[in-house]
Amino acid sequence: LPAGFTAAGVKAAIKTNGLEDVTIVAGDADCAAAVVTTRNQVFGEPVRYVRQILPKGHGTVRAMVVNSGCSNVATGKGGFTDAREMAARTAKLLGSSPAKVLVASTGIIGHRLPMEKIRRGIDAAAKALSRDNDMAALRGIMTTDTREKYAVVQTRIGGRQVTLGGMVKGSGMIAPSMATMIGVVTTDAAIGSAALHKALLAAVGVSFNAITVDSDTSTSDTVAVLASGAAGNAPIKPGTREYAALAAALAEVCSALARAVVIDGEGATKLITVSVRGARSDAEARVAAGSVANSPLFKCAVHGGDPNWGRIVCALGKSAAKVDPARLRVKIGSHAVFSRGMPVAFDVKALEKHLAAKEVLVEADLGLGKGASAVLTCDLSREYIAINADYHT
Amino acid sequence: LPAGFTAAGVKAAIKTNGLEDVTIVAGDADCAAAVVTTRNQVFGEPVRYVRQILPKGHGTVRAMVVNSGCSNVATGKGGFTDAREMAARTAKLLGSSPAKVLVASTGIIGHRLPMEKIRRGIDAAAKALSRDNDMAALRGIMTTDTREKYAVVQTRIGGRQVTLGGMVKGSGMIAPSMATMIGVVTTDAAIGSAALHKALLAAVGVSFNAITVDSDTSTSDTVAVLASGAAGNAPIKPGTREYAALAAALAEVCSALARAVVIDGEGATKLITVSVRGARSDAEARVAAGSVANSPLFKCAVHGGDPNWGRIVCALGKSAAKVDPARLRVKIGSHAVFSRGMPVAFDVKALEKHLAAKEVLVEADLGLGKGASAVLTCDLSREYIAINADYHT
Repeated sequence: LPAGFTAAGVKAAIKTNGLEDVTIVAGDADCAAAVVTTRNQVFGEPVRYVRQILPKGHGTVRAMVVNSGCSNVATGKGGFTDAREMAARTAKLLGSSPAKVLVASTGIIGHRLPMEKIRRGIDAAAKALSRDNDMAALRGIMTTDTREKYAVVQTRIGGRQVTLGGMVKGSGMIAPSMATMIGVVTTDAAIGSAALHKALLAAVGVSFNAITVDSDTSTSDTVAVLASGAAGNAPIKPGTREYAALAAALAEVCSALARAVVIDGEGATKLITVSVRGARSDAEARVAAGSVANSPLFKCAVHGGDPNWGRIVCALGKSAAKVDPARLRVKIGSHAVFSRGMPVAFDVKALEKHLAAKEVLVEADLGLGKGASAVLTCDLSREYIAINADYHT
Repeated sequence: LPAGFTAAGVKAAIKTNGLEDVTIVAGDADCAAAVVTTRNQVFGEPVRYVRQILPKGHGTVRAMVVNSGCSNVATGKGGFTDAREMAARTAKLLGSSPAKVLVASTGIIGHRLPMEKIRRGIDAAAKALSRDNDMAALRGIMTTDTREKYAVVQTRIGGRQVTLGGMVKGSGMIAPSMATMIGVVTTDAAIGSAALHKALLAAVGVSFNAITVDSDTSTSDTVAVLASGAAGNAPIKPGTREYAALAAALAEVCSALARAVVIDGEGATKLITVSVRGARSDAEARVAAGSVANSPLFKCAVHGGDPNWGRIVCALGKSAAKVDPARLRVKIGSHAVFSRGMPVAFDVKALEKHLAAKEVLVEADLGLGKGASAVLTCDLSREYIAINADYHT
């Protein structure tokens, strides 16, 4: 935890696995904060509450309260009241106001929160707030995640050491072009909330918005960053070298968290980077890379270690991005497999060795312009089916 | 086979399973013909050849030659020469011209056709052409298909009985919004090729373009219809009652074939209809239905028999179509599960019984307008992964 924050995660029996399920991350005093939420048109009541208290996506925040085990989505006005009560109860215990407490919930859709358990959990978490409970706080936001996912970056800004710490949950219902999942980043940097929001939007674009596990976009996606200012640097202004340093550090934290989400993707055994350049624009490069990263046939081929470049070329061709086979080049790892409309003879044994590793790289050069982008994804395995077909609501 | 056609399918040892792999469907004389091909920007050389001889998508055609086992995609100028040779050889044996023979190939991407086998196959198929070989002809176009898929519709037009017969291959790399897979429809109706093309475009819109197995669009998609005129009806003109009857019959054949493709989808155990109404437009209804039909989480839930309506609502919400949860209603089978932002209590046992059946119906009313559309899909099973991860190029 960067300076100026405490955290806690407690067991409130909302999740059936007996692990932590109510988390509070609190500033010692008011923080500058920025938040990005899901673009899904069906969104949770906690998302509605956060948009109400931070209509511009940034402002002054004292704390964030999160529960796992129930997402409070599709619960109507009663659900909104519950979200607001979570904020109000947390605020009262911290001596703050409901409008300064962010709320997020994750878990099953369509069920009201068990408010008696939530209230007891919030009371216990507020009492347990400390500098040492960050891992329990992280477990308190997890659902189907199989591992704790966090990242810490330190950098010098304005002569001061600045720390950014981030945690994230998510392994299924993960899609690109959205602020994905629940992520909380804290920093001791001093920065205004508008500048922080600008940096967060940029960081999300190259991290959470550039990953996909299964092309499905969650109703609860929320990423928040809280800045305490405890590092003692002069407040960071947009357009300065200091802003660039903080934005780079924030992008680094978010990218590490996003990568951890894909590695922990449901059923995933491999991390796949699909990198496209030579597109007419960066946006078209993202679309083309996403088309490959979301192709179930491609993801199955990587799972099976099959150098099936035909599925890559096919997925590029079906995308909304302009693709001309006569200019297209494709590499898997360091091996050229397709060039300007024709297959390239490759060393099958060496390519299969690359595909057998934990990380697989696909590079496509569309040969049409200077647009470039990359999307991270994972392979598609029987285990994904098992997790999502055998799970019952 | 409708009157005026013969067909044959022969074993030329292109496929390793020893089944038929070269097929010819021939008119006794020249036919009016219409064709729709893939929208994938990476398309096969046979598709390039067909677009060259029928630049408007319709014209006069004598026959169609198809091979399975190798798709002749990403094979460059040599591949185009091979496709043209297939047409020329077939034309010569039938006493026709290369510009009147359609060509399609299906199978692995990136390999040149084994032309010695193809030539022997075409020679043998031309000799075997008869009224009785239609099932062998159908087997000659199949790849991973596990069953023969065909449909026959008869109707009276202009006082004459008119027959339409169709066959199709395809079970993976099947996506909506495209003319999908290889399909051949023959009819003895008398109709001009431009009118036939118009009817085919309409039929494809409600059939092949309204299905998805795995969201991946093939590079070889081709649907052709050939009309011999042997039924003896007065040639059908657009805008007449006769045209409407033929268009309806053609849509019926294409829909039956499209449905058969989904039922035979790789790893499929259930046929799922996602029907959306109340959208702002038919196009938005199609987008919303497609978003559900392509959601791996939804497809896994149906596979597991789980009444997980949250995944349906989530997939609708992430789509590019306008969705307002406060107006949205969702039914699974005859059971309302979601209405205007809130869950609806349902009979779990009865709903699980519906989900345990071979056919599952999902209906969503967006409550925003009069747009309606339906998309057919199948569930997502471990068997899909097995087929596509264990398959090696």
